[in-house]
Amino acid sequence: MEVNKKSYTSIWLKKNNQNVIQIIDQRHLPFMFIIEDLKTPEDVYFAIKDMHIRGAPLIGVAGAFGVYLATLQARKKTNYNEHIILAAEKIKSSRPTAVNLFYAINRVMQAIDSVKSIDKKIKLSKETCIKIRDEEIESCRQIGIKGFEIIKKLSEQKNSEVVNILTHCNAGWLACVDYGTALSPIYFAHDEKIKLHVWVDETRPRNQGAKLTAWELHQHGVPHTVIADNTGGHLMQHGLVDMVIVGSDRTTINGDVANKIGTYLKALAAKDNNIPFYVALPTSTIDKNIEDGINNIPIEIRDEDEVKFIDGFRNNEIQKVMVSNPNSPALNYGFDVTPARLITKLITEKGICNPNKESILNILNK
Amino acid sequence: MEVNKKSYTSIWLKKNNQNVIQIIDQRHLPFMFIIEDLKTPEDVYFAIKDMHIRGAPLIGVAGAFGVYLATLQARKKTNYNEHIILAAEKIKSSRPTAVNLFYAINRVMQAIDSVKSIDKKIKLSKETCIKIRDEEIESCRQIGIKGFEIIKKLSEQKNSEVVNILTHCNAGWLACVDYGTALSPIYFAHDEKIKLHVWVDETRPRNQGAKLTAWELHQHGVPHTVIADNTGGHLMQHGLVDMVIVGSDRTTINGDVANKIGTYLKALAAKDNNIPFYVALPTSTIDKNIEDGINNIPIEIRDEDEVKFIDGFRNNEIQKVMVSNPNSPALNYGFDVTPARLITKLITEKGICNPNKESILNILNK
Repeated sequence: MEVNKKSYTSIWLKKNNQNVIQIIDQRHLPFMFIIEDLKTPEDVYFAIKDMHIRGAPLIGVAGAFGVYLATLQARKKTNYNEHIILAAEKIKSSRPTAVNLFYAINRVMQAIDSVKSIDKKIKLSKETCIKIRDEEIESCRQIGIKGFEIIKKLSEQKNSEVVNILTHCNAGWLACVDYGTALSPIYFAHDEKIKLHVWVDETRPRNQGAKLTAWELHQHGVPHTVIADNTGGHLMQHGLVDMVIVGSDRTTINGDVANKIGTYLKALAAKDNNIPFYVALPTSTIDKNIEDGINNIPIEIRDEDEVKFIDGFRNNEIQKVMVSNPNSPALNYGFDVTPARLITKLITEKGICNPNKESILNILNK
Repeated sequence: MEVNKKSYTSIWLKKNNQNVIQIIDQRHLPFMFIIEDLKTPEDVYFAIKDMHIRGAPLIGVAGAFGVYLATLQARKKTNYNEHIILAAEKIKSSRPTAVNLFYAINRVMQAIDSVKSIDKKIKLSKETCIKIRDEEIESCRQIGIKGFEIIKKLSEQKNSEVVNILTHCNAGWLACVDYGTALSPIYFAHDEKIKLHVWVDETRPRNQGAKLTAWELHQHGVPHTVIADNTGGHLMQHGLVDMVIVGSDRTTINGDVANKIGTYLKALAAKDNNIPFYVALPTSTIDKNIEDGINNIPIEIRDEDEVKFIDGFRNNEIQKVMVSNPNSPALNYGFDVTPARLITKLITEKGICNPNKESILNILNK
């Protein structure tokens, strides 16, 4: 997608030095656009853990590249296999909820397991990473094409009046590699001149909606309005939302969806007001081993300071201010699980399906 | 209630000059404790409009005192009646959603209508204000006594294990004059040594939960934890909430409740998880003229900058930082309406009732 009219993705091999990965350090957006070099698996670990990059598809791709960087590092070691395994495990421990991270890392590990020499491992891991990255881009493109049809139909039902779409957190190209998941259909619809407007949940505590989604939509010229997370229910009660679309960090085989904390509340409000609630996801977020999302998806607990403090922009720099009573503890769950019964459809790169086991297995076997 | 071991209310006549009203300027809490003098009806108008003070019961009492200050000002005018009427109308226009403001102002206006001389008007308006203030305090005390029984029963059902209570925004003594509405039963239960813990929604965009409720509870020694507004649903799904209790800015005769934006989302989650949802309110918030809250309670739209910026504490001062994409518009509804069907019981100073017309009329006629 474009940033100030120049084409970008969220992660790539550095142009003149393919031993380095580059990312957009998203902690500084929307206030500063800073590109960061990742040179070691430790760099990748911290970039994921400290959220220089986030979003299930993106951290999957980044994790894979982390293994590639580990193979480069391992070249100088005699016990290079052990070194790579340890690096991979370390990166896997950076964040617990998104399943893509484990899938992507395991995929690179399996690929390089088939060759013995470190040079071949380096070559193969790099190729696998590029393949995973390309596949994620294509997945998001396909999600866009498929989800576009839903928006188009709504637009027709409204006689081409503005379609109002609510989204939570950032499931745009910054969360993926390109296009995005939840935002991909929106970009396709906007490019096809369908009139639409996006309600952007600010998404406390880290404000990925207000900071990243709003920035993305602004860069692409999509009409949008930022709202406090508390506002969606009121908008839905008053006919101001035609559909909700969000991403997924992990999807169970039964169709439960772990996504940014607060998603469940919006799904309840959508149900209460008969508004369709869509989840856009690459099938790489589907965890075939879990049926009951509420009881079995591990939910990350992050530092309480993310609730007690907020990073904002002032005097041309990012400053951290305290926004809570200093003597009060806070608790910071990163995700919640929206049960399948509240979800209208899942939009995947392989097609649109119902949030139940049969329908999801059908899609996976396509 | 106590602040650093000294007894305070949220509004009072100045000790040595009863022509002045004093308030705690709540914009600076919890970081600074600043008492402000209100000397004119204009001072009261801006104190309400710019939220030096907030909370339906408190702005009712403050509005009444504003009329008293108008009578003092009118002493020097020949057209003193007109002056008082204009001042009252101005104060009424400060905020549109809470009905107490209109009730309290009208009550003072009616009281002083019965006397002619300005000196008598001054005396009578002052007396009426003191009466309204005393009644609000007693209402909140009664709400505490009645709501206490609900918490006590829950504690017994849990064999004296910790009762977890979720609240939204600030409906404590800072929102009233003393005790609070939603927090009053909590204070009574805590004082009676019932083990409890309060989940405090931070309550974006103005963070009255994180800033005021957390501060109040801390001052009184009540165990509590601040959470992002997005978190309540997840807690409820995992059995971490035993009851929800919130305040009300306006209650329809059918039991719909207008309260801080986001209340409706928590009510939906409580319903979905079979958790009782209580609203604590003085009967002064009941609007007999409105049946359908969603369609007929006017909902205040506040400045978008309250969403785009946040006031936080840094380097020993309160600073405003930008927390949203600079080029994106925001929309800032102050309240939403929770339909009666989602509410378990209303807790009023006259007793506990069901959220329906018959039960509410019964309570009002007590």
